Amino acid sequence: MARRAGLSAAAVTKAVRPLIEAGYLVEDVDEGARPALGRPANLVRVDGGRALFIGVKVTGDTAIGVLTDLCCRILVARHIPLSARDPKAVLGTAAELVRELLIEADGLGVRVAGLGMAVSGDVDRAEGVVRYSPFLEWRDVPLAELAAMATGLPVTVDNDVRALTVAEQWFGAGVGLSGFAVVTVGAGIGCGLVVHGKVVAGAHGVAGEIGHITVDPAGPRCHCGNRGCVEAIAGDDAIVRQVRAATGVQVADAVEAAGLAHDGVTGAREVYARAGDAIGRGIATVANLLGPERVIISGEGLAAYDLFADHIRDAFATAAFGSAARCDVRTRPLPFDEWARGAAATAIQSFIRSDAN
Amino acid sequence: MARRAGLSAAAVTKAVRPLIEAGYLVEDVDEGARPALGRPANLVRVDGGRALFIGVKVTGDTAIGVLTDLCCRILVARHIPLSARDPKAVLGTAAELVRELLIEADGLGVRVAGLGMAVSGDVDRAEGVVRYSPFLEWRDVPLAELAAMATGLPVTVDNDVRALTVAEQWFGAGVGLSGFAVVTVGAGIGCGLVVHGKVVAGAHGVAGEIGHITVDPAGPRCHCGNRGCVEAIAGDDAIVRQVRAATGVQVADAVEAAGLAHDGVTGAREVYARAGDAIGRGIATVANLLGPERVIISGEGLAAYDLFADHIRDAFATAAFGSAARCDVRTRPLPFDEWARGAAATAIQSFIRSDAN
Ligand SMILES: [Zn+2]
Ligand SMILES: [Zn+2]
Repeated sequence: MARRAGLSAAAVTKAVRPLIEAGYLVEDVDEGARPALGRPANLVRVDGGRALFIGVKVTGDTAIGVLTDLCCRILVARHIPLSARDPKAVLGTAAELVRELLIEADGLGVRVAGLGMAVSGDVDRAEGVVRYSPFLEWRDVPLAELAAMATGLPVTVDNDVRALTVAEQWFGAGVGLSGFAVVTVGAGIGCGLVVHGKVVAGAHGVAGEIGHITVDPAGPRCHCGNRGCVEAIAGDDAIVRQVRAATGVQVADAVEAAGLAHDGVTGAREVYARAGDAIGRGIATVANLLGPERVIISGEGLAAYDLFADHIRDAFATAAFGSAARCDVRTRPLPFDEWARGAAATAIQSFIRSDAN
Repeated sequence: MARRAGLSAAAVTKAVRPLIEAGYLVEDVDEGARPALGRPANLVRVDGGRALFIGVKVTGDTAIGVLTDLCCRILVARHIPLSARDPKAVLGTAAELVRELLIEADGLGVRVAGLGMAVSGDVDRAEGVVRYSPFLEWRDVPLAELAAMATGLPVTVDNDVRALTVAEQWFGAGVGLSGFAVVTVGAGIGCGLVVHGKVVAGAHGVAGEIGHITVDPAGPRCHCGNRGCVEAIAGDDAIVRQVRAATGVQVADAVEAAGLAHDGVTGAREVYARAGDAIGRGIATVANLLGPERVIISGEGLAAYDLFADHIRDAFATAAFGSAARCDVRTRPLPFDEWARGAAATAIQSFIRSDAN
């Protein structure tokens, strides 16, 4: 712990004592686990059940909520459809979801210590403000303040992909790594970056925009105004549009598009091949610039992963520069609850930090 | 100082005292500069003349050396052509350069406290090893150890672009910024990245490879094996090749190529326009992924900057996503001595860090 935090053993002891007194950490009494030399370093472990947290992810049509313990294990998951997308309607739905989860926590007899909310777009976590969310059509919504008033809980708001990255960093495949990336494939192509042990937020709120890396300047038009962005080739909408054009079948969504490709329809398979190529090039660009130890590919789009996995791998291997190719690229399934779990992880992070200071 | 380092005033006082006693820092006695309230915070400034440093940059044909003070101000600059590129020959030339600069330091009556060496390629600074340098055709050369034996000085070796980035971070346009990028334009297109206040080194030695971001998958072949990399369009060799093809004039080098463009030869001007476009897109990719506060464009290629400045600016503005466009993109001339000054900056950094611990 001292090594990870760059602190002296004495400083860690001082920081840990109040957490032990409050019951969040439990000293491990296994004598065999102590190092043989030097000052005995007692092992401590987190008592996950000592405090609970709620995470809420707001998508374009649903609010998804989870109740987790201090180790970010999901105890209960719920979702409620949104009646509308304006801040007032979304807050009403989110508050209802939180009330339901608070009742569950009451049943467990443990207090809820914080609420995390995750929204796609440009979110200023420090200020608790959603600066711009294209999906919700929000601008400058002080979400943390409004949600705190509606629920009575301390609230952390963050961008959804960054929240997912925090969950990986603290409780998932990013534990112990000083540099890694999470790439989400689905409606959008997103990326959370950890560099020097911290999630990159960007000086002006923009970071991790792997979806708008140009793959082909002659490629299809992207909603950002440019041509041939990764998202304009590999995002759900782009895939649906391209599969329709290639096969003449008016597939309704990405699930139907993947169905055609799984049935072996050539035109549909080629669309996924191009999508995989674009994603692999995007990941190689991240690796060439930052040299992360690991890239974790996740997102709803993973349901079609078998359709583009080889193309991602080949394009990455081709475009990675020198030893950047040694980066560990892996996949991780992402049930929709995980987005809400990411939101809970940001609440746990805020809780631990405020507790320690 | 306390705010920058995240330390208490007491901790800074404790850290600063030995530096003052050793004479590197001088307390400022200007009473007017003290804040009116609270514990008086004495201003301290660096006594740059208290210790000197040598920086050596090795290119494909020359060793360039500078003698600097503790504030990285160049006092003397020298260069010696290389007789050959093998490690033994390069070390002999570098040692000769260091001897000359040590004599200069002797004349000033100040000791030289460290030597920094900068080489292009994959350099492991912590181990002091040049893992791979394509220009010099070196593999796994323990340069720090060899140079320390040859000169008797403590030696720091680093990648040349990262060394330049350290110089900007400690003594240049990056002072006070937690995130910025240095983009060098010349024989290669390089990039040094500072994220969360630290230079990015990459888990496997590769980072900042802006030169191998794909701009056009149908573009010219790059020495890395891919097509349409920024460097394959905007590096010196690429520009010379393209200007020859466009104009039929067998220009000898980038200076002659720029000369044709400055003379208004249309084909040559178009080559620079495409180069500027490629560089601007590369910079936009860095901004979209990391959201730096500033990008500093530098390098020998800046001599032709007027030929592609507008194209860099336009391509950046077009490809930057949302508020990433607010990044401050600026240029800074880079005389060749600056590369050696970067090497000196890494030696100063090593000196200060070892002194503080
Ligand atoms: Zn785009
Ligand atoms: Zn290349």
